[in-house]
Amino acid sequence: MFEAAKVGRTVSKADFKAQRDELRTQLLEVQRTLRDSHIPVIVIVAGVEAAGKGEVVNRLNEWLDTRGMQTFAFWDFSDEERERPRYWRFWRTLPPRGEIAILFGGWYLAPIEQRFRGECDDAALDAELARIVDFERSLTHDGALVVKFWFHLSEQDQKTRLKELSRDDRSRWKMLPKKSKFSEQYQLFEYVAERIIRQSDRGIAPWYLIEAEDKRYRDLTVGKTLLQAIRARLQQPLPTEPPATADPLDLPESASAQITLLDQLDLSQTLARDDYKEALKHYQREINELAWTAYSKQRTTVLVFEGVDAGGKGGAIRRLTHALDARLYRTIPIAAPTDEEKAHHYLWRFWRHLPRAGNIIIYDRSWYGRVLVERVEGYASEAEWRRAYTEINDFEEQLVENGSILLKFWLHVSEDEQLRRFQDRENTPYKQYKITDEDWRNREKWPLYKVAVNEMVARTSTEYAPWTLVEGDDKPFARIKVLKTVCDRLRAALNDDSSPIPGRGIARCGYQSGDGEH
Amino acid sequence: MFEAAKVGRTVSKADFKAQRDELRTQLLEVQRTLRDSHIPVIVIVAGVEAAGKGEVVNRLNEWLDTRGMQTFAFWDFSDEERERPRYWRFWRTLPPRGEIAILFGGWYLAPIEQRFRGECDDAALDAELARIVDFERSLTHDGALVVKFWFHLSEQDQKTRLKELSRDDRSRWKMLPKKSKFSEQYQLFEYVAERIIRQSDRGIAPWYLIEAEDKRYRDLTVGKTLLQAIRARLQQPLPTEPPATADPLDLPESASAQITLLDQLDLSQTLARDDYKEALKHYQREINELAWTAYSKQRTTVLVFEGVDAGGKGGAIRRLTHALDARLYRTIPIAAPTDEEKAHHYLWRFWRHLPRAGNIIIYDRSWYGRVLVERVEGYASEAEWRRAYTEINDFEEQLVENGSILLKFWLHVSEDEQLRRFQDRENTPYKQYKITDEDWRNREKWPLYKVAVNEMVARTSTEYAPWTLVEGDDKPFARIKVLKTVCDRLRAALNDDSSPIPGRGIARCGYQSGDGEH
Repeated sequence: MFEAAKVGRTVSKADFKAQRDELRTQLLEVQRTLRDSHIPVIVIVAGVEAAGKGEVVNRLNEWLDTRGMQTFAFWDFSDEERERPRYWRFWRTLPPRGEIAILFGGWYLAPIEQRFRGECDDAALDAELARIVDFERSLTHDGALVVKFWFHLSEQDQKTRLKELSRDDRSRWKMLPKKSKFSEQYQLFEYVAERIIRQSDRGIAPWYLIEAEDKRYRDLTVGKTLLQAIRARLQQPLPTEPPATADPLDLPESASAQITLLDQLDLSQTLARDDYKEALKHYQREINELAWTAYSKQRTTVLVFEGVDAGGKGGAIRRLTHALDARLYRTIPIAAPTDEEKAHHYLWRFWRHLPRAGNIIIYDRSWYGRVLVERVEGYASEAEWRRAYTEINDFEEQLVENGSILLKFWLHVSEDEQLRRFQDRENTPYKQYKITDEDWRNREKWPLYKVAVNEMVARTSTEYAPWTLVEGDDKPFARIKVLKTVCDRLRAALNDDSSPIPGRGIARCGYQSGDGEH
Repeated sequence: MFEAAKVGRTVSKADFKAQRDELRTQLLEVQRTLRDSHIPVIVIVAGVEAAGKGEVVNRLNEWLDTRGMQTFAFWDFSDEERERPRYWRFWRTLPPRGEIAILFGGWYLAPIEQRFRGECDDAALDAELARIVDFERSLTHDGALVVKFWFHLSEQDQKTRLKELSRDDRSRWKMLPKKSKFSEQYQLFEYVAERIIRQSDRGIAPWYLIEAEDKRYRDLTVGKTLLQAIRARLQQPLPTEPPATADPLDLPESASAQITLLDQLDLSQTLARDDYKEALKHYQREINELAWTAYSKQRTTVLVFEGVDAGGKGGAIRRLTHALDARLYRTIPIAAPTDEEKAHHYLWRFWRHLPRAGNIIIYDRSWYGRVLVERVEGYASEAEWRRAYTEINDFEEQLVENGSILLKFWLHVSEDEQLRRFQDRENTPYKQYKITDEDWRNREKWPLYKVAVNEMVARTSTEYAPWTLVEGDDKPFARIKVLKTVCDRLRAALNDDSSPIPGRGIARCGYQSGDGEH
């Protein structure tokens, strides 16, 4: 694969000067057009050591307007990063629409290093690459342009370059441990790089192989490639969407039989007042203790509450938080996104709220809005909500891999019961703020919501993050079911110390903090 | 002081119920009005141990709408927090306008703990309290409502309460070390608390002393107090501003003599091309090394570039960044604020960008916009830009206290030279994006800017963060002056290992991470 990057291409000083100013003007022009677009641009800079990745980035910083461009290097993990799913550090760096982020290594850094050091095998590498491909697909579907540069040198050139650098006071090589390791093990590095590039080189986010021997050729080629890539992307204003029929997840017959899921709930279940009081006391006491245990074990708990309007989410959440120390939990009610949130992938706002280890976060409505209200109201296109199932499953898998305990509740009531509650809200002063015209309009779309909920549960009730459907007509019954489920799940997870990554058996690269190559 | 919180006030169960629903309705109503206002509300919850601070916060979470309200507890510092000025963790939690943040302890937590444990003396405590008063004044001037609750118990009541809690499985007391320390040393704690409250009880951010013995009285009183405070603040839509004439910082005669500062710059200084090339090479090499030394010593560098339009900021920054490894620095060009940024204090956007330890951050324009463009264009009121000098000095002092190396450059050119550069920009394709009609308009306000710059330099050139005025008519001369200054300052700061908190001799409480009381 790398032969093409060892042919010795050069650009003369005169040619470089002649082309540079024109390129710079065009880059600035395209950057201005980009600013008014809905496209975030992510540039990954990777490659062999001593190829001059830092120099290239400095060059781009000089050529482009630094307004709307940010560079990120990933050093060792901070504890705030370590306490959250691995990809949190990348989500933090994703640029808003119209801007450019340049990432040193990005999500390729850890897999390259670990496979190269023999800390994981090809299977683990491939598992991580599959995640990377999903991640990049999700970004590009959201409108992002992902441009990945791989800088390469022949073995001889790299040796020479490393020798020069080690003599050069200005280099960072003195700072780095094992400075010659990459050169010595050139062959192994090429093997790892080739596997990574081959598997992650997709049409939506291709790799550009750049011969790095001649600096002028290298920099001009990067500039031109970036220019072309942004131009091409600007001419194709809507993100590529797979036709809806091509969805590989189409429910098989057996799954579509589950579509009557909600109808099968026994909404007549009730709990007597005395039993309720006793159970409430019992479970609240246990939850309080479990929450402190989770804190001392540094396990994060993520709770998702979804449900029909007036389904009893708020009441159930209050019974839960009443049991918790106010220092340990935070409720995130999902309201209208801010403009910074709108300028990012729809999952970005949920990633940004993830708490530090040991805390409890309660989402009052959640990322499932994408496949519920946004689907039903048409705010999301069919392609958008269809692919959201996979995106959500991947997000939740990452939460669980990181050791978080994830619980998802759907609170359901019958249409009659909902009507009674709406009327009650209109008649109780401190409840009036909870009922709006929109609630009445949503009610008319009940059948559409039912289909959406059924599909959501069928597609996102996973082994590692199952849905709990709560029969909500009787509030005491529903609240106790929620509390009992929280207790049972927390207890089971906290007693299972054997598996810090519960639920999944697939090994992946990327779990350790690397601090070598950047 | 605390006698008033030990008189044994109670509310009967019946009275509580009768008042609660009405209070709740009114709280929700005032919260809705608040949402459309420009007022952020900060509630501090502090007091003796076992007073039930967590219970109160849970109650507020139940009574108010959780949309637009967040609770923050401050546990031990994360390394990301430790690597930035102490108050970064508080700036992170400040609510946007229209919303409420409830802070456990907030900025009072560390001073209370450390003084109580004897880790600092009264003088250090007072120094920290002076900072707190400045900080709260800055927040309230910006429109914030700061409501501070102190919950108190008599010695006997606290003893009884702690005994109960230690028997109670649901409590967090099992988790905490030294659980009885506060009770045993009740007198000392009261002494510390009284000193803190007395010194930080200002009209703009008063303390409310709440008797915590009877939970119903406690919760109702908190609810009502908060309601009244928000209502009162809403009726007074503009932040209280001291009349401009009351500014205690008015320049004395000796300072106003400096107002000719810029005129005294010798703009005729030049540097020959060969000397420039040699000096450039020399200083770039040294800066590269110094930057890596700063990284290894985990010292952050903050560079501020201000200057007249076309003063050469961009060129000087590029000569600087060219010397730096792209992994170590970030340039923050100050563009229009996002809506999240607009919803906060004007310094919030600069706090949020502060890098982790050892990195270099370059502000291309900065917080000085407040006293330059915002002053001249009238975007900020006179009271706003006048108080900004103090706010900026305090911000910079905090940076330096944290070990950051802070450099500030003003790049100046003559009116004639500016005109030549404007014309050059209009005639060079890749420079055209840098010249706008606004630049021409600003030029007409040259005399006003000159007054603003003179006053800015006079008021904010501090021992710990001096301004460097750069004579910019000759670009080579200006660039070398910038690079040489960076070298000199970095070298001096990095060789001075004796003082991790350079520049200032005042000891303050708050430097260690506490993990006790929350």
